[in-house]
Amino acid sequence: MAFSGLSKRIRELPKSNFPAIIRMAEEDKSIISLGIGEPDFPAPKAVKQALKNAVDKNFTHYSPTAGRHELLEAIAKKLKRENKIKIDDPHRQIIATSGSSEAIMMAIMGIVDIGEELLVPNPGFVTYRPTVELIDAVPVSYNLSSEDGFQIHVEDIERLCTPKTQGIIVNTPSNPTGTVLKKKVLEEIADLAIEKNIIIVSDEAYEHLVYDKARHFSIGSLNGMEEHVLSLFSFSKSYAMPGFRLGYAVGPEKLVNAMQQFHLYTTLSPNTMSQIAGITALEKCGRDVEKMRLEYNRRRKFLLKGLQGVQGLEIEVAPEGAFYLFPRVTNGMTSEQASKALIKDAKVLTAPGNEFGTKGEGFVRMSYATAMPKLKEAVERMQENFK
Amino acid sequence: MAFSGLSKRIRELPKSNFPAIIRMAEEDKSIISLGIGEPDFPAPKAVKQALKNAVDKNFTHYSPTAGRHELLEAIAKKLKRENKIKIDDPHRQIIATSGSSEAIMMAIMGIVDIGEELLVPNPGFVTYRPTVELIDAVPVSYNLSSEDGFQIHVEDIERLCTPKTQGIIVNTPSNPTGTVLKKKVLEEIADLAIEKNIIIVSDEAYEHLVYDKARHFSIGSLNGMEEHVLSLFSFSKSYAMPGFRLGYAVGPEKLVNAMQQFHLYTTLSPNTMSQIAGITALEKCGRDVEKMRLEYNRRRKFLLKGLQGVQGLEIEVAPEGAFYLFPRVTNGMTSEQASKALIKDAKVLTAPGNEFGTKGEGFVRMSYATAMPKLKEAVERMQENFK
Repeated sequence: MAFSGLSKRIRELPKSNFPAIIRMAEEDKSIISLGIGEPDFPAPKAVKQALKNAVDKNFTHYSPTAGRHELLEAIAKKLKRENKIKIDDPHRQIIATSGSSEAIMMAIMGIVDIGEELLVPNPGFVTYRPTVELIDAVPVSYNLSSEDGFQIHVEDIERLCTPKTQGIIVNTPSNPTGTVLKKKVLEEIADLAIEKNIIIVSDEAYEHLVYDKARHFSIGSLNGMEEHVLSLFSFSKSYAMPGFRLGYAVGPEKLVNAMQQFHLYTTLSPNTMSQIAGITALEKCGRDVEKMRLEYNRRRKFLLKGLQGVQGLEIEVAPEGAFYLFPRVTNGMTSEQASKALIKDAKVLTAPGNEFGTKGEGFVRMSYATAMPKLKEAVERMQENFK
Repeated sequence: MAFSGLSKRIRELPKSNFPAIIRMAEEDKSIISLGIGEPDFPAPKAVKQALKNAVDKNFTHYSPTAGRHELLEAIAKKLKRENKIKIDDPHRQIIATSGSSEAIMMAIMGIVDIGEELLVPNPGFVTYRPTVELIDAVPVSYNLSSEDGFQIHVEDIERLCTPKTQGIIVNTPSNPTGTVLKKKVLEEIADLAIEKNIIIVSDEAYEHLVYDKARHFSIGSLNGMEEHVLSLFSFSKSYAMPGFRLGYAVGPEKLVNAMQQFHLYTTLSPNTMSQIAGITALEKCGRDVEKMRLEYNRRRKFLLKGLQGVQGLEIEVAPEGAFYLFPRVTNGMTSEQASKALIKDAKVLTAPGNEFGTKGEGFVRMSYATAMPKLKEAVERMQENFK
């Protein structure tokens, strides 16, 4: 059989309706976007200056496939300080990646073979399921429900484990639900991972964005989890650095060291200057992170309150993390119908919940990474026009 | 079967001895490296300034998965001007990638399914074969021989085509051999691709680095090849921008458009600021490229001449491209033995030829992306001490 123009692995990836909805929104400049998960803040000043210094000093050459030594060491210190994850050898247990997107892909490549299974949250971040399918492995959904604020039930996970299960992706704080997983839940998952001998991929891209009484907890910090957790982190959200394409993974030496080797076959390394700027972010931008977090929280509270006045949408448990709300659509519309109606009637862009998995059907995702005046206008419009 | 710590797809990747040889070299500061394929020049001044301007203007946010519109348009103009490749719609026929490494991986993902075959050069660039294996497809070597300067014989290709063959990777100028493929050879391959209905992945990372009478020719510019060639380009070599991690692919709309979609599952996009700097490279750095090319050519001629005085190494046909020489080892040593002896006796680091495939056995790769004084010292040492 000759070349058909596209591999089956790609042809069979799920089709998304979200790009069409975004295009609908782009046609009308008055539309306010709560659709995209991107900080509206620019990168911190110190980070920008560090990038400029790096290029002045001609750090324009290749970096090692693990990442630059000084970055790996700064990451190890941050992990100890902020995540209580202890690293013996940063150069073998950490890899810097081109965004945490690449870390997700590389983790999946390192964990599952053809036909093997990886448990993924439903609803969950849009890339998990297709990335598993991309390499001919099998994503198996574990369902999350709004009634208990989308917490994980470990019995559900246990029931889904088969001899083919290699691991589970856990995401806290969660995109799209904003849920912060409870420490107790994470401890139960850790115990199960040891019992079943599977690996936990812990996506903590929103680690710094938790509010009120919620605390972010890194499952990789639990005793005895050294060989059972690969933790993924990102500079995109915490430090408002999405354009830098910088993330990292930390975990079992065997897996991470292999990722460092086959990095040559994906992107070799993240941008060299971004890596140097990343050191500044880790070491000097704690205040910037906190300032942004406080502003996100102010918006979150405002949006939560505002949604109480929107007839067709309902929040059952207020989420305490990331920068998303994930209200249920209560007027009988599907996610897609609701997103389209919100554009047409209220001129507000949201992401249809079904984009995040079948169990996201009947919800919409709203990002509050949008400046307060726009958020106010969006709430008013939804209160008046969405029923 | 529970998780063994690493997927089979990764466990079975070929092991490389080159890192161990590099470590040998790192132990002695007097060793001169001809080992790594990286420009010794910093990025052009205008590119560095453009990067700084981009960060000043807060281009620190996400970019579209295809790449930034203004970059795609600048690439389309460059392709028309320099490669004679005509683009109807840059936004659907071009994708900007995190280095051409990522373009190689994404191309392979878009072309081959489990068990399908992709023809790769032997010797050839180190990532082709493992990247095909990474996604459980099958790399099939076509052999190149030093006797005719490592040109491709289209009859060999024809013989290797099976019903499972989906495409062929062609690399000109070549890493590791420095060969510039002749236009006539490329025309024959184009005809064969149409006859067999396979796709050509044309890796042109070294497009600007050709010398003497050699001319770089883009197979994608041939009539009727719109649906049969995916051309890959890089900013790393031409513009001395490896740390920017920026490359691009151009080709059939169906394939490229799919790559734009599944970019979400690899790295989303290359670094945003790098993309803006890339526009400056394409539009304003022709003189920088030419200046570096002239210097590479000066070194190439010097090294070619110098190698005539090295007893254990021989060049049969002088290569006219990239920044590599690929001499045969004539003293009975294997590639690895020769590389180790060159470190030990002459204190010169080279890459063993077998790293580039079985047909690279008996050769070593030398990069002349090294400043002239060091190159002179390296030649003297090899002439005196390698026999």
